[in-house]
Amino acid sequence: MVVTIDDHGLKTLASAASLAIESLARPGGPRSDLTPRALHDLVWSMEICPENGRDLATVLRELGETVWSHSVVPSDPATVAHLHPPTLLPAVVTELAIAASNQSMDSWDQSPAATEVELHLMAWLAELVGFSRRGSGVMTSGGTTSNLLGLTLARSWAAQKIGVDVLKSGLPPEAGRWRILCSDQAHFSVQRAAAQLGLGRDAVIAVASEPSGVMSILALDETLERIAIEGLTPIALVGTAGATDLGVIDPLTEISERATRWDAWFHVDAAVAGAFLLSDQLRPRLAGVELADSVTIDFHKLWWQPFNASALVLRDEERFDLLRVRSQYLDRGDELEGMTNLVGRSLDTSRRFDAAKVVATLATIGRATLASMLEYLVELNEFAGTKIEEHPSLELVAAPASVTCVFTVAGASDEQLRDVQQRLLSRGEMVLGRTTIKGRAALKFTFMNPLATHEDVEKLVTTIADEITA
Amino acid sequence: MVVTIDDHGLKTLASAASLAIESLARPGGPRSDLTPRALHDLVWSMEICPENGRDLATVLRELGETVWSHSVVPSDPATVAHLHPPTLLPAVVTELAIAASNQSMDSWDQSPAATEVELHLMAWLAELVGFSRRGSGVMTSGGTTSNLLGLTLARSWAAQKIGVDVLKSGLPPEAGRWRILCSDQAHFSVQRAAAQLGLGRDAVIAVASEPSGVMSILALDETLERIAIEGLTPIALVGTAGATDLGVIDPLTEISERATRWDAWFHVDAAVAGAFLLSDQLRPRLAGVELADSVTIDFHKLWWQPFNASALVLRDEERFDLLRVRSQYLDRGDELEGMTNLVGRSLDTSRRFDAAKVVATLATIGRATLASMLEYLVELNEFAGTKIEEHPSLELVAAPASVTCVFTVAGASDEQLRDVQQRLLSRGEMVLGRTTIKGRAALKFTFMNPLATHEDVEKLVTTIADEITA
Repeated sequence: MVVTIDDHGLKTLASAASLAIESLARPGGPRSDLTPRALHDLVWSMEICPENGRDLATVLRELGETVWSHSVVPSDPATVAHLHPPTLLPAVVTELAIAASNQSMDSWDQSPAATEVELHLMAWLAELVGFSRRGSGVMTSGGTTSNLLGLTLARSWAAQKIGVDVLKSGLPPEAGRWRILCSDQAHFSVQRAAAQLGLGRDAVIAVASEPSGVMSILALDETLERIAIEGLTPIALVGTAGATDLGVIDPLTEISERATRWDAWFHVDAAVAGAFLLSDQLRPRLAGVELADSVTIDFHKLWWQPFNASALVLRDEERFDLLRVRSQYLDRGDELEGMTNLVGRSLDTSRRFDAAKVVATLATIGRATLASMLEYLVELNEFAGTKIEEHPSLELVAAPASVTCVFTVAGASDEQLRDVQQRLLSRGEMVLGRTTIKGRAALKFTFMNPLATHEDVEKLVTTIADEITA
Repeated sequence: MVVTIDDHGLKTLASAASLAIESLARPGGPRSDLTPRALHDLVWSMEICPENGRDLATVLRELGETVWSHSVVPSDPATVAHLHPPTLLPAVVTELAIAASNQSMDSWDQSPAATEVELHLMAWLAELVGFSRRGSGVMTSGGTTSNLLGLTLARSWAAQKIGVDVLKSGLPPEAGRWRILCSDQAHFSVQRAAAQLGLGRDAVIAVASEPSGVMSILALDETLERIAIEGLTPIALVGTAGATDLGVIDPLTEISERATRWDAWFHVDAAVAGAFLLSDQLRPRLAGVELADSVTIDFHKLWWQPFNASALVLRDEERFDLLRVRSQYLDRGDELEGMTNLVGRSLDTSRRFDAAKVVATLATIGRATLASMLEYLVELNEFAGTKIEEHPSLELVAAPASVTCVFTVAGASDEQLRDVQQRLLSRGEMVLGRTTIKGRAALKFTFMNPLATHEDVEKLVTTIADEITA
């Protein structure tokens, strides 16, 4: 059962792959209506590890009936809760090749060609961001890790300025006064990163946002001046490009100016809106991203890649030296010229070759089509906003931005909004988002599916309004 | 190009999958003999993102010629450098289903069945470790992250004992006296975790190992007493089950006793040897693992899963509360009963459904066959040790253990060992390991491939000996 790449091995792989694909067949709808309890009982009735194995066809069929039949379908137009995309064909089939060849990105002698592919992709991405040829990056398992890596570098850089090697010696006493500033609409992974790094969530200052959700530069300036008086040091400013709920993009150029003035690292979390760089129409919204020290871009969001595929891109590749740890068995430093070991720029050791699927996708779809898919979704989201505005019982919480649209129901309590979302989910009718904006419960659409139509959106709006009065 | 699961979508997926599989065909050998420079030029000649896409068949064929042809082949018997396994058929084809269905493990409404599958698999794994029904775990992207997560919990636990919420407030002043103890043969990810957590690499004390490579309990006791006198607090003891180089397993029961006595968290890094729990013959080597607070087990090592697939298993599931952060849009806490959101136990947010491939593998292969594959590799490694011992010009550095065998060449300088390994790699003849044990350069075999034969091993030994004199 070991996969080999001789003729026989590839034939076996092809027939097994067909079985796996057949197992995905299921009725329509965003999910089944099985209750959580019934689903639990069904899944837990599987025997995880029998003494003797069973026929692969049987196992895959059972997985289909038990698991895939009761999964959420991201290619269904009523799956609109999260930044949870359907995936593109070139990426999905390349996953098979990634798994069969099983390159590991930590050392060149586990991934010679793959290492060069990742470096080439990262150089291209750095150029797309607007960095010079000194830019580069690394693939990570997600935006949360990319943000953590960016802020890990920011922490090392702040420590270096006072002569401390923080990775070696730990946080210096001064670290108690270090602060990270982001908008109050930034992703919670900024706080998680601060927690992980030993600074604590309290080291993150949430700068007030405008009603639209973008960071208020006035509030940023006031905050920077206030904390300076308190003797605190802003080690990093984080701009958000595509807030999880409100979709908005912070004024990056203005934040960059403050970062320079206060000698802070400038990190941009463009996990959501990074893809806009592909579109001439949408790209201007990201103005200033090229001024960042580090940028998070998630390929597993609006590039329609299967999880996991994110990147952290640096303006200056040499900054990875802030992280580098040599290892005797992986990265000794005495390898032949050109044998790059990527372990030095990652928080992981073993790491899958996710770059392959991104490269296959970009080459097959091309920039122009990707750009029009993005533009279509942004337009679809604006259309949803119009429909919500027009509806007598629905209200927008903020103008729709990027691919998300947050709204509420006139006169509905938080409890009623919760019930609407949970009932639609329970019946398998719609996977709708629900969140809280500035203390107020709200519902949320997230449009990730280029196959969804304007009619689909109209139907979603009507279904929700009907459900409220039901 | 969006993957759908209707009849037409699945047919399209099947024919594209065939193309991806065809693209893997290549001549034999562990890798091509292309120089790093030539490989760089070849890969960087690809256009990453053309304006208009190209035919999928063409793109996949080019990826085959450019990338897969110049990859390392883990199913080749001369790929023996790292814990870099060939992969099993059920896992590889399930990757396709994982990518097509694209569940995200952070919230139930992105992965209803998948959430239950992961919880079921983790409950089974906890039971295999020997934990009570209170045990559970979470899938992570690798052993490095699993170790980081275990030590993140250890840090929170240590802080909690002195009334500090470290994730909220950051490291308290007492943290400057916190220490993590592991053997001098432990994986470098223990140091990386300490660096990440703000404690610094210097907070890790490497306890001397015996000549075999296992942690010396005498040295551990001496260290614990010495640091107590210095006013330092051991917050975690880390036992290694399957050292990266020497393959050995620390005396876990003895370490556990010290952890209890000194009120320290006991983490076991069983990334390598965790699979031995499946074998009646090998399982006794892990005695004491059931006494751990947390255990790292890598499915992408001796369970032959494609990267990434690791787990952190806890003796007491409630300990995940040490990590939990609620999020308004993902995990509000007011969901219907049974809608578990796994984001609370992970360092990631979006996360792929790696549990599916592990479940498919276990069900298809069964415990008995997996155990015999493991036993075979351990025996093959011992056979390699015998052949090295018998060879007049080779010397074992330590007795072979688990699946690794470290050796040197009589009278050879560090430089000569390096040259042997680099020449074999450059010519595409053998991907051989090289490391440093207690300051002395050494070569290393790692046997991960159940298709390798005793004849293959004899040939490896002869090739190396011949290369030295070449």
